[in-house]
Amino acid sequence: MEKNQNVSRAVIQRLPRYYRHLSELKEQGEERISSRKLAEMLGLTASQIRQDFNCFGGFGQQGYGYSIDKLCEGLEEILGLKQERTAVLVGAGNLGRALIKNFNFESNGFRLLCAFDSDRMAIGHGMNGITVRDVSELYGYVDQNKPDIAVLTVPADCAPQIARELVAHGIRGLWNFTGQDLHLENLGIPVENVHFSDNLMTLCYQVNQSEQNNM
Amino acid sequence: MEKNQNVSRAVIQRLPRYYRHLSELKEQGEERISSRKLAEMLGLTASQIRQDFNCFGGFGQQGYGYSIDKLCEGLEEILGLKQERTAVLVGAGNLGRALIKNFNFESNGFRLLCAFDSDRMAIGHGMNGITVRDVSELYGYVDQNKPDIAVLTVPADCAPQIARELVAHGIRGLWNFTGQDLHLENLGIPVENVHFSDNLMTLCYQVNQSEQNNM
Repeated sequence: MEKNQNVSRAVIQRLPRYYRHLSELKEQGEERISSRKLAEMLGLTASQIRQDFNCFGGFGQQGYGYSIDKLCEGLEEILGLKQERTAVLVGAGNLGRALIKNFNFESNGFRLLCAFDSDRMAIGHGMNGITVRDVSELYGYVDQNKPDIAVLTVPADCAPQIARELVAHGIRGLWNFTGQDLHLENLGIPVENVHFSDNLMTLCYQVNQSEQNNM
Repeated sequence: MEKNQNVSRAVIQRLPRYYRHLSELKEQGEERISSRKLAEMLGLTASQIRQDFNCFGGFGQQGYGYSIDKLCEGLEEILGLKQERTAVLVGAGNLGRALIKNFNFESNGFRLLCAFDSDRMAIGHGMNGITVRDVSELYGYVDQNKPDIAVLTVPADCAPQIARELVAHGIRGLWNFTGQDLHLENLGIPVENVHFSDNLMTLCYQVNQSEQNNM
């Protein structure tokens, strides 16, 4: 797979959406799709999609439509979903438990190894094959098992210190649900900050717009 | 506030991020910011930011930097955060409870009125001033109290039917955490589909990239 090292963040962020929609089409037994049709599904333009795919060498002739199988495989390779990376989860409160119970880490390229919490009521409990351990064992566990990333579902005020310690112990990426932005790019550590509020505000805007359009 | 009706979704999705970062600066006592500085914070270009703001009439002279207060106020107005919209939450499992307990609906333009679940163990319980009611009362409650939006934290397979019913009962927007895309745009109902996986795949890509850069 030919890769362009300078792919913009905007393009990268579209890749999972392509992959998700294409995987659904594949499950439905579809074999080919045109950039126009895919654009319609995603609310983009066909030219945008062709440009995005061209960052990674194209994926075949557009005249015949794209092979969905090839696209899925290509995206899996680009995103690195088949590398069996590993994750630990820190903070087994409601949100942490929701992820342990319901989120499919495997289909997103990760195996969840273990969860950690400081709450005695949570420690020792298992969910979905994942045991919650005492957070005091976290850094020792990371030293020994070398997970690739940590999922942070701790209270916001603990986030910066835990993040720094995890990085010092070799964590290579953070999936941060704490609502507190963590900037570790200067350490070369990618962080995905999840902000539920961004999403809700976007909805708020759209509800207002639809109201105004109906007046 | 001058509004351009044809603002692209990409611009809309950046507005909450602007608002979030500017609110933080405001709390820190900052008064003015240049588009260049804001661009650095957000990983965008200054010209991009000026273009985005121009969709809404500009927000003042760039030579002096933007007034953070004015920007925050303008964004609150554009996003409609001060309109005291109301929400109900459907599905008080782990994720639903995490939102009820920890998510600040008010600072995002919404008042959470009530939660619903089908689990007898959950019904009747209160968290953060919100009572969980029997889901059989949901549509009656919506008829009577006319919440603006519903937060969907139910299992994916229930999502389409509950969404359709809610819309039939007058719900005007959906914040959908079920992982199952809901498309109600043809009904004029905005939906924000939250996909945790998009985020994790983006992180997967970045971890791979940082590994390759270090080789």
